[in-house]
Formats: sequence, structure tokens, C-alpha cells
Amino acid sequence: MGNRHLLTTGMTRGAIALALLVGASLDAAAGDATAGAPLATKCEACHGLDGLSKIPEAPNLAGQNEQYLVKQLTAFKTGERQNEQMSVVAPTLTEKEILDLAAYYSGIEIKVGKIPGQ
Amino acid sequence: MGNRHLLTTGMTRGAIALALLVGASLDAAAGDATAGAPLATKCEACHGLDGLSKIPEAPNLAGQNEQYLVKQLTAFKTGERQNEQMSVVAPTLTEKEILDLAAYYSGIEIKVGKIPGQ
Repeated sequence: MGNRHLLTTGMTRGAIALALLVGASLDAAAGDATAGAPLATKCEACHGLDGLSKIPEAPNLAGQNEQYLVKQLTAFKTGERQNEQMSVVAPTLTEKEILDLAAYYSGIEIKVGKIPGQ
Repeated sequence: MGNRHLLTTGMTRGAIALALLVGASLDAAAGDATAGAPLATKCEACHGLDGLSKIPEAPNLAGQNEQYLVKQLTAFKTGERQNEQMSVVAPTLTEKEILDLAAYYSGIEIKVGKIPGQ
């Protein structure tokens, strides 16, 4: 029982250390929403500065998941995902600019109202 | 001048008729949010019934542009766009189910609150 307790404690400590490391790494990778705000003028015509789509083909970005935005912008930059507009814009962005834009758009507060059928 | 006026009027009538036809066709293609609601249980684990992402990899869908949702679901169904989860789920959906799901998620009301730097 003593050994099992030690093992469990060791695993818990390991898990906490890993969580701290992951947290630190996420912080290091996090973008700066304030730096992203002026960059968003590149996105404004289609996605708006408020993150609400201005053309039928473009998605809303307001309050979108930050990690998802980084992944998709990177996919457009590398060519993994293709789109007439985004395949032109994304390759002009640095990795830091992608993080900052993701922080800006994910930082726009959204509230959900009425849900169909509810 | 008389002929030119007739031609212009004819073109205007043609444009109106075309606009009416396009409108009718969009209506015919529009999904049914109420029919989409029970289908959304397929999406719930990642995207929520409220359209707010439940895992870091998944985007919010609440209030998303309907046309964008139809296009992306169709792209996942055909394989044009790839994703570990969506490439499994989307091919199980019929075209009508895609329209209904897009109507459901786009029909969720969202309001934008505070914007970073403003």
C-alpha cells in the first residue's frame, strides 16, 4: 500500500509538472490581440473588424476558437487548405502575425441567443 | 432612342425575372433548422448543440454563415477538405441533412460584445 501511494504521488507530481510545462508552452505561443487589431485591416473586407462576415462566402470569426484559427491560417499559408482569397492572403502573414490575428478574433466577445427549436 | 428604351426595359425585365428565379432557387435549396436540430446530436460532442466548441480543435458554429457551412460540409463529404473527425462524419450526411444542419447552426443567434483594443 505504501509503495502504491508513493507511485500515485509520483504520477500526480509528474502530471502536474507536465501540465505546467504545457501551460508555459501555450503561453509562449499565445498571440497578442492588441498587435492583431491593426493587422485585421487585411481581413476586414470579408470578415469585418467585428469578426462578422461581410460576404456570403466568408465565415464569421468573432469569438472563434483561437487554436482553430491558428491551425486554419497556417493551413492556408502552407497550401494544405485552399481558398481563392485565403490562399493569397495567408502566405503574406508571418507565424507571429497569425498568432496575433487569432488572438484578436478569438478575443471578440460573443453571446449566444435563441437556438432554433428551443 | 425608342428602340434603345425598349431594349433597356427588356433587359431590366430579364434581370428582374432572373433575380426572381435565383431567389426561388435559393429558397428551394434552403435548409430547415427544425429538421436540423435532432441531426445536430451528431455534431454535439465537438460543436455543442449551442454551436460553441467543446474541444480546442473544433470551431464554434453558432450563427455561422449558412452558405459557408453548406460549402464546408460538402467539401468534407467529397474529400476536398480533410479532417480526422469531419471526414468520417460528413460522408454519412445527405445533401438535405447538410442544408438542414447549416440552417440550424446558422439560425443560432449571436451577439458581438467587446472587441480587443476598442
